[in-house]
Amino acid sequence: MSFKLHHHCSETSARTGTLSTAHGDIPTPIFMPVGTQGMVKTLSPDELVDIVDAKIILGNTYHLYLRPGLEVIRKMGGLHKFSTWDKPILTDSGGFQVWSLAKLRKISEQGVEFSNHIDGAKTMLTPELSMEIQATIGSDIAMLFDECPPYPCEQKYAADSLSLTTRWAQRCKDWHEQNAAKHIPWQLNTQHSKLKTDHRQLIFGIVQGSTYAELREQSARELVDIGFDGYAVGGISVGEPEHEMMRAIENAVPFLPKDKPRYAMGLGTPPQMLEMIARGVDMFDCVMPTRVARHGTAFTEQGPIHIKNKEFEFDPRPLDQNTHPYLQKYSRAFIRHLFRAGEMLSLRLLSLHNLHFYLRLMRQSREAIENGTFTTFKNNFNQHYIQQP
Amino acid sequence: MSFKLHHHCSETSARTGTLSTAHGDIPTPIFMPVGTQGMVKTLSPDELVDIVDAKIILGNTYHLYLRPGLEVIRKMGGLHKFSTWDKPILTDSGGFQVWSLAKLRKISEQGVEFSNHIDGAKTMLTPELSMEIQATIGSDIAMLFDECPPYPCEQKYAADSLSLTTRWAQRCKDWHEQNAAKHIPWQLNTQHSKLKTDHRQLIFGIVQGSTYAELREQSARELVDIGFDGYAVGGISVGEPEHEMMRAIENAVPFLPKDKPRYAMGLGTPPQMLEMIARGVDMFDCVMPTRVARHGTAFTEQGPIHIKNKEFEFDPRPLDQNTHPYLQKYSRAFIRHLFRAGEMLSLRLLSLHNLHFYLRLMRQSREAIENGTFTTFKNNFNQHYIQQP
Repeated sequence: MSFKLHHHCSETSARTGTLSTAHGDIPTPIFMPVGTQGMVKTLSPDELVDIVDAKIILGNTYHLYLRPGLEVIRKMGGLHKFSTWDKPILTDSGGFQVWSLAKLRKISEQGVEFSNHIDGAKTMLTPELSMEIQATIGSDIAMLFDECPPYPCEQKYAADSLSLTTRWAQRCKDWHEQNAAKHIPWQLNTQHSKLKTDHRQLIFGIVQGSTYAELREQSARELVDIGFDGYAVGGISVGEPEHEMMRAIENAVPFLPKDKPRYAMGLGTPPQMLEMIARGVDMFDCVMPTRVARHGTAFTEQGPIHIKNKEFEFDPRPLDQNTHPYLQKYSRAFIRHLFRAGEMLSLRLLSLHNLHFYLRLMRQSREAIENGTFTTFKNNFNQHYIQQP
Repeated sequence: MSFKLHHHCSETSARTGTLSTAHGDIPTPIFMPVGTQGMVKTLSPDELVDIVDAKIILGNTYHLYLRPGLEVIRKMGGLHKFSTWDKPILTDSGGFQVWSLAKLRKISEQGVEFSNHIDGAKTMLTPELSMEIQATIGSDIAMLFDECPPYPCEQKYAADSLSLTTRWAQRCKDWHEQNAAKHIPWQLNTQHSKLKTDHRQLIFGIVQGSTYAELREQSARELVDIGFDGYAVGGISVGEPEHEMMRAIENAVPFLPKDKPRYAMGLGTPPQMLEMIARGVDMFDCVMPTRVARHGTAFTEQGPIHIKNKEFEFDPRPLDQNTHPYLQKYSRAFIRHLFRAGEMLSLRLLSLHNLHFYLRLMRQSREAIENGTFTTFKNNFNQHYIQQP
């Protein structure tokens, strides 16, 4: 068994656990920094370990397939070796990027044909190819290839899309069982001697169904019937209001096995993550902490601050009093100056700080759940944290 | 005495020494990475110490005066404290940037009026103001405010410009003697307790005179009469051919005191620096290693390589076999991928590598001079190093 539950919160569905993968154990709840093109933007693998305390990062199948491409990743021994990141990696399936980035999408039973966003070339992604790419990347956790319906979405479209995702789910599972081991670098390559090679690549299902409770239930039940190592809730954080985001989780979780990890894809703000943890979610990923960093936003326990603001011109304090010791010496005034001068160091410092903030929030959540104080912790956090537009 | 000579090369004018400053001792010959806006582009102060082994960095008076401005630097306790860089800093005087960046320059006896390159506002820089800015920054070494003639330059213009620079040199020296200590943060501020506060800010002269031997001699003699802690050769690396660059050094060095450091401003390539060391130069600064890094060029012992090139697509080797251990794990293939994908990490890795290459070249030069093998070392280096266009 790859997921071991440790603790349940008595007042909520919050829980802690450990997810075992080929490249190491991941304590849950956990946040996964996003390494779109093989590494988290502006940061080095060492910084992700030493400062952020990242336990797992996410790689984007769509991006890595287009560039550097499968041949490079295969010849360089998979993404771990290529990027020098030797902790766990989860890859998404490319489905979301095809939906959000590619042009001239044509969805068929076979897969999705599209013009890619780099050179416009026609590309076809199928459930089988997505699984092959993820196996070649050698991620510890692969995601099934799904269709992500837009928001808002007619019930008929959502139902048809869900059925297609279920059929694709079965094809992903079949391909994975029969072929994955032939492509996974750490199962082929004896250079990875330190690895627990008895761990295969895990594969997670993705619950779709848009805003419709009965479709979410149907999707969850169909995926559980096929059988996956974990279950994501997809099709959220696509522009819907926050209460719909929470409802999507609430509508899926009751139909997912308790002893498998649950992953809310592509979100969220710190308060949103705490609400989702309370609803039984174990894993998160989001570009937000690093993307807003590159626009000058730093998370603090009093809410986000915008480092460009005049009020920080002479501010000698660090971004947040509880930021990582490595970042304590940099004043808001200096980071503001670097940011205004267009210096990349400011983007790094803000990215490091925000991810450190996110990973610390996960550690604090785990501690609070273990101590039976999660609801108090969450309420206390929310009371101090002022959301800003 | 702030400069102690250790060794002379018997075959050339190459020498080693130690320059003592308020923030530490600098072994020479030395290369100074350029921190235009308060820090070396893409890098952190820690990386400059731990990986590059930088002993001193350069700050740009012109840039720092425009942004963040004197009030911020003063209130934040000077540039060392503001930027968290606690090793030596040399500041240029702003003269070169006024010449190369600003528009609508109007040079008078008083100083230079110009429209700055950020918002076009009219700004006046005088010898006294330049010295005040450099004192407020709290650099360990200040440069006099000079006029930098273009290349090519009529002899009459070069002679008049040189005379103006000499008169400005006297004004700089006078202001520095009477006023600097009132502005220098580490002489005002008791928080810098670890500092050798018996060290005052050093001030270097700048020899001008364009391509005219007699003007270089005149400039050197006049500056030595005024008396400085070190002497730079300015007005080079402004578009002239390489032999003119060497001649400018050869025309100035014989008239400079042997027991003061000599600094060739704004250059150069690795072979150029070795040639200048052979001619008695002790200090260098240049944006080139970091600027070309941001365009994908890495220095190697076989000459520069362009990481974008197809030949590196599957290259598992590090940028250079002798790069810093921290950088050894990153393959050319991975850095190429990051660079093509527009990822800032590639610019950092290339910048770190190039500066490490430059500082290693300085260490190797010092060792060779001490061992009496500098000429062999230089010839050997040049033999392997293939210049590329």
